[in-house]
Amino acid sequence: MPTQDSVHILVAGYSFHNKPFYMVEMDGVKNYLLRLQTDGRCRARIGDKMVLIEPGDLLIYSPDQPYELMINEEINPQGELSVESGDYHIFFGGEWIDEWWSKLNRPTRIKVPLNETILGLFRQIVLEQRKIANPYPEILEYYMRILCLETDRLLHEHPATTPRTYMAYKMKHYIEENASLSFKLEDVAAHAGISVSRAVHLFKETFGTSIMQYTLDVRLDMAKERIIFSPMSLETIAETSGFANYTYFHRVFRSRYGTSPRKFRMDNREQI
Amino acid sequence: MPTQDSVHILVAGYSFHNKPFYMVEMDGVKNYLLRLQTDGRCRARIGDKMVLIEPGDLLIYSPDQPYELMINEEINPQGELSVESGDYHIFFGGEWIDEWWSKLNRPTRIKVPLNETILGLFRQIVLEQRKIANPYPEILEYYMRILCLETDRLLHEHPATTPRTYMAYKMKHYIEENASLSFKLEDVAAHAGISVSRAVHLFKETFGTSIMQYTLDVRLDMAKERIIFSPMSLETIAETSGFANYTYFHRVFRSRYGTSPRKFRMDNREQI
Repeated sequence: MPTQDSVHILVAGYSFHNKPFYMVEMDGVKNYLLRLQTDGRCRARIGDKMVLIEPGDLLIYSPDQPYELMINEEINPQGELSVESGDYHIFFGGEWIDEWWSKLNRPTRIKVPLNETILGLFRQIVLEQRKIANPYPEILEYYMRILCLETDRLLHEHPATTPRTYMAYKMKHYIEENASLSFKLEDVAAHAGISVSRAVHLFKETFGTSIMQYTLDVRLDMAKERIIFSPMSLETIAETSGFANYTYFHRVFRSRYGTSPRKFRMDNREQI
Repeated sequence: MPTQDSVHILVAGYSFHNKPFYMVEMDGVKNYLLRLQTDGRCRARIGDKMVLIEPGDLLIYSPDQPYELMINEEINPQGELSVESGDYHIFFGGEWIDEWWSKLNRPTRIKVPLNETILGLFRQIVLEQRKIANPYPEILEYYMRILCLETDRLLHEHPATTPRTYMAYKMKHYIEENASLSFKLEDVAAHAGISVSRAVHLFKETFGTSIMQYTLDVRLDMAKERIIFSPMSLETIAETSGFANYTYFHRVFRSRYGTSPRKFRMDNREQI
């Protein structure tokens, strides 16, 4: 169990501005700050420049880093001038956080996908923070740790310099998310908004394996774990792990593991 | 940082059955099992009976507890017979889990709300589990710890015996979730599906405070933290903490803390 001081959260909230707003703390905000732009536009200090911040921009400031935020009229996607900016923000700190921060050199801005994983984390942290007399403080602490680690993962997967890598990871996530269902190469490519031939090439280049091969790896991995640890029938396992039919599953399983699913289950069950 | 053995997850998945299905392990499933019914109906062993399991039923089995599951024709909400059952299931274990399990005597079945918090946790655990060669195993581990603690919190908040308590907590969550916006007593009551007078009575009886008082507590708490730790202006803080206007905020703040928001900020800023 973590000690209660290893991560603490001072403020967690969501703000929406439709009036101009300005603030500056040249000596820093004294704690760590994570700020995710979810709607509209604003400008924030990155190094010595005020930079346009758009939805999906995650800003991270350490305690002594200068912070400056300016919300004013910006050109919206409809080409009109309007004051509109929505963001989640968390002020936080603690020993675990100091250690996390010291491990990696992170840029002030990271582009992140505004998906259920990221928005869900911010939402849960805000909700937890609002509970008065909460007997489960560890829940908030664990969510915050996940958000820090997820930030590192995104940083690792989406280096700002290569939109190509970004699309490749987008396809990889699609495969992991949909592995238990059936989908086509076209669906994977469409999810990244590129042609099938470009998708095939990009995936191979980034991960050294093909889309279909990686899909098969994920499915076999799911099925293998279920064979060993779950009490489901082998037919149900094949079906719920994205295989079109049992015959096909049996064939690919045998060619990968050199044994039939049934024999594999028996051999592994004995060890438990 | 947790050791990699303190929580491990063997299988995490979602299954949907529309054909009859039966399984039994009278000696138990050898690991812990959490199974959340999300759709349709089935029957599962609870103690020495096979019991109807409906959406929102969360089942927990420890390693040696008998497990029996039967999916067959049941009467659906439309009054027709059909085979339909959807569930998330996680087989898991580890030292942290053993310790968690030993701390409390939990029933096999807990009624849980199928909301974003619970469904989000299951979804994230399933997604994390599918990643091959994942360099961030702690993320999965933290999500699993949160799910265990969240289960305890639900158990604490929704004792199966009192639907009254369930409705009171539903209102409390509504208040916490919407505190930064403006809402009426009618909205809180409507969320629990009861009349305003019943809502007022039930909330007071369960928590010993009124709905309006609790809402004010949550808002003042949010505002107080922001005054100390965030660089937002006091006007913005009042507005984003659910107060209709600054004059009202100033008045209730002073009556609660015996000082004005501005003085309170100055006094507390000096300490940082």
